[in-house]
Amino acid sequence: MAPKPAAKTPNIVLFFIDDLGYGDLTVTGALGYKTPHIDKLAAEGTRFTNFMAAQAVCSASRAALLTGCYPNRVGVYGAFGPKQGLGLHPQEETIAELLKANGYATGIFGKWHLGSDSIFLPKQQGFDEYYGVPYSHDMWPLHPWQQQAQYPPLFWIEGNKQVKEIKDLNDAGALTPTITEKAVSFIKRNKKKPFFLYVPHPMPHVPLAASANFKGKSERGIFGDVLTELDWSVGQIMKELKDQGLDDNTIVIFTSDNGPWLNYGNHAGSSGGFREGKGTSYEGGQRVAAMIRWPGVVPAGRVSNRLLSNIDILPTLVKLTGAKLPEKKIDGIEFVDLLKGDDTKKPRENFLYYYRKNNLEAVRKDNWKLVFAHPGRTYEGSLPGKDGQPGPAPEDHAIPLALYDLTRDPGERYDVYSQNPEIVAELEKIAEAAREDLGDDLQKRPGKNGRPLGRVEK
Amino acid sequence: MAPKPAAKTPNIVLFFIDDLGYGDLTVTGALGYKTPHIDKLAAEGTRFTNFMAAQAVCSASRAALLTGCYPNRVGVYGAFGPKQGLGLHPQEETIAELLKANGYATGIFGKWHLGSDSIFLPKQQGFDEYYGVPYSHDMWPLHPWQQQAQYPPLFWIEGNKQVKEIKDLNDAGALTPTITEKAVSFIKRNKKKPFFLYVPHPMPHVPLAASANFKGKSERGIFGDVLTELDWSVGQIMKELKDQGLDDNTIVIFTSDNGPWLNYGNHAGSSGGFREGKGTSYEGGQRVAAMIRWPGVVPAGRVSNRLLSNIDILPTLVKLTGAKLPEKKIDGIEFVDLLKGDDTKKPRENFLYYYRKNNLEAVRKDNWKLVFAHPGRTYEGSLPGKDGQPGPAPEDHAIPLALYDLTRDPGERYDVYSQNPEIVAELEKIAEAAREDLGDDLQKRPGKNGRPLGRVEK
Repeated sequence: MAPKPAAKTPNIVLFFIDDLGYGDLTVTGALGYKTPHIDKLAAEGTRFTNFMAAQAVCSASRAALLTGCYPNRVGVYGAFGPKQGLGLHPQEETIAELLKANGYATGIFGKWHLGSDSIFLPKQQGFDEYYGVPYSHDMWPLHPWQQQAQYPPLFWIEGNKQVKEIKDLNDAGALTPTITEKAVSFIKRNKKKPFFLYVPHPMPHVPLAASANFKGKSERGIFGDVLTELDWSVGQIMKELKDQGLDDNTIVIFTSDNGPWLNYGNHAGSSGGFREGKGTSYEGGQRVAAMIRWPGVVPAGRVSNRLLSNIDILPTLVKLTGAKLPEKKIDGIEFVDLLKGDDTKKPRENFLYYYRKNNLEAVRKDNWKLVFAHPGRTYEGSLPGKDGQPGPAPEDHAIPLALYDLTRDPGERYDVYSQNPEIVAELEKIAEAAREDLGDDLQKRPGKNGRPLGRVEK
Repeated sequence: MAPKPAAKTPNIVLFFIDDLGYGDLTVTGALGYKTPHIDKLAAEGTRFTNFMAAQAVCSASRAALLTGCYPNRVGVYGAFGPKQGLGLHPQEETIAELLKANGYATGIFGKWHLGSDSIFLPKQQGFDEYYGVPYSHDMWPLHPWQQQAQYPPLFWIEGNKQVKEIKDLNDAGALTPTITEKAVSFIKRNKKKPFFLYVPHPMPHVPLAASANFKGKSERGIFGDVLTELDWSVGQIMKELKDQGLDDNTIVIFTSDNGPWLNYGNHAGSSGGFREGKGTSYEGGQRVAAMIRWPGVVPAGRVSNRLLSNIDILPTLVKLTGAKLPEKKIDGIEFVDLLKGDDTKKPRENFLYYYRKNNLEAVRKDNWKLVFAHPGRTYEGSLPGKDGQPGPAPEDHAIPLALYDLTRDPGERYDVYSQNPEIVAELEKIAEAAREDLGDDLQKRPGKNGRPLGRVEK
């Protein structure tokens, strides 16, 4: 499709922060450092408190964000390793491809993690420009705390080429400023046409490192330093938008790929009190900070508690920009009216908590969450790590069937299954439909899914 | 002391909501109803996320708020029953007395619960006017779910007189509008002099009831209806301030006496994910929603995560109004600079979690909370109540010694005692000083405290 001019369409900046917990911003209760630039997005836009990462792990959540699909639908599970040869299927249509077809300049500066072989890299998924790391920077031979001999050298990638090896923590510390500089440059160079700027910062994923300007400056150790630098980065990018006169016509979205990696102790973030963290389908793993700013369109200083997910961003941006939806089925639901301030709208009623290969661990409808019996990790009961050294990897426990009412129990501690048979029946129906559509390894009925690469089709 | 004119001093409106959980407002994540008027206080003022009720139970928290003291210092424990003959000692100086001495008109409309015998009523504690209930409206012979034969009839009190018996839930449903009407009238009648208006709403304490305008209107059942009506009440009072041209020169404070009463299930609120609720020294019991609005003085739309407590309100109001501090020692610390926007200020570094007669259950310094081994109730592990019928009263468990880092673990689930001996030593020192000052029944060293009425003196 020939790109068409779309001069009046809004620019889009999408921040996607790695392992940032729900509680890691000043506006959500962080202690020991401050995030004024990120908080300003909430003050000048709308903050969402029931915004779910589609899966509580890196590659899967990124696939969901960029395709508008539950990650198991597009065959992406877990976190891709450098040598696995896996990636998001090139035929899947990403936000970048849809917007590019609509005349947008597209750039990604940061962590990709949807395949490090060249066929999978961002330029093959709709991005004009890429500068960043191909996967998490703990998959690194020089990682200080683990036997990492299995990992190849980690390089900065520009376009499709490796340009510079990351050899020490000073390099890793330079992740945030380098990405910031590239993002600012992209705005400068593309200020005359609509652009989609995707900024998936690799921090505060471990190993943590902050550059010299920020190291040792917070009251919260290196984690606070890293967050302060990330906040600075958001401020720099917002300043560039303002300097170019673009900030009124730019939709800025800020969210995280999953909850905090809790067994890293003081090198991990905070779920804000929600149960568990990354790698679990409890709220601490999947409920993430989220805010959207678009002056004059999205109400300022508003908080919305409607259920949404990162898979809903794609159809929403498509509707706002006049782009086309992907040809294949997606799971995301557009929330334009809600975004514009109509809180009577309930665009998303249900949410599916898939994890691992294809386990349907829980389903949600409105405030009700039905957790199915499943093997799941827990961070509780073992000592968390400290100062960069992780605690023991959380072991699987037999998680029992339970129903939680998230209106009065967002911490998921008070099982009310026996009191609510009608609610359970409704949720079971939703689960049954999900199993028909996407399968469920817990039921030993995987259907056609379970492939490591490629879309699940009925 | 002769009242002196204080025409330029700000008016004060203090909302103190009963059993409102941290998560029960839209701005803190509530589902199924909306609180736009209360949220507006946060948008136009500063919201505090580490604001602690001094004790997680009704009378004790009210004594703390009004005297600026830990409640055990002034000999107030738990929730006074109607026939106990106990109350806040008349010689304790309350915010109302201090402001009245400074020329303020003072009124309380709502629930007192600091003694129902006439010597203890609000008119004897500095309030010019009182209309409300003397204690919780579950201490009521007509309570639908419990054997309440031990309770005398519950009356509306005006000044020192019983004026009308509350005989049915429609009467109880009329609690919120009646209190609202009286508060609005007080503003109208006192608009020409500075006033202190204290509005301790008895809802959403059980038994819940909303008036006809609100019943059945929310998506969250009666609890949502009650919250919608409370939000309406705040809106009415704010509207009256605005209509009288007073809203710029009025300090509006909004907070709660303690966390949600969780064994009431869907008739209880939400701790927002914090652990446990009312009647516990976990954060769910004591960390409460709090916001302060004073246009032009207190920054709008700001979130502060500094540690504060409701005992800090008295000295702060004293400083802001030029009133005098009480003659006897208080525990509250003024936070005027922080309130005005200087977040480098850390007025409160420590906090003492006393509960029951005089058990020092935990101490906090900054982000660190040391929980001492103690018998404590837990709501976990038993089925919560439903539709007004409570679940089983939570039983005591042996709560073990633990250290929590609230920066990364606000949910208090990951004990890091063994990793942080220096921090433990610091917190032990704070506890030791508290024991010297106020005693500690857990140590069987009650000192001079433990009296049901009267101040602890060294």
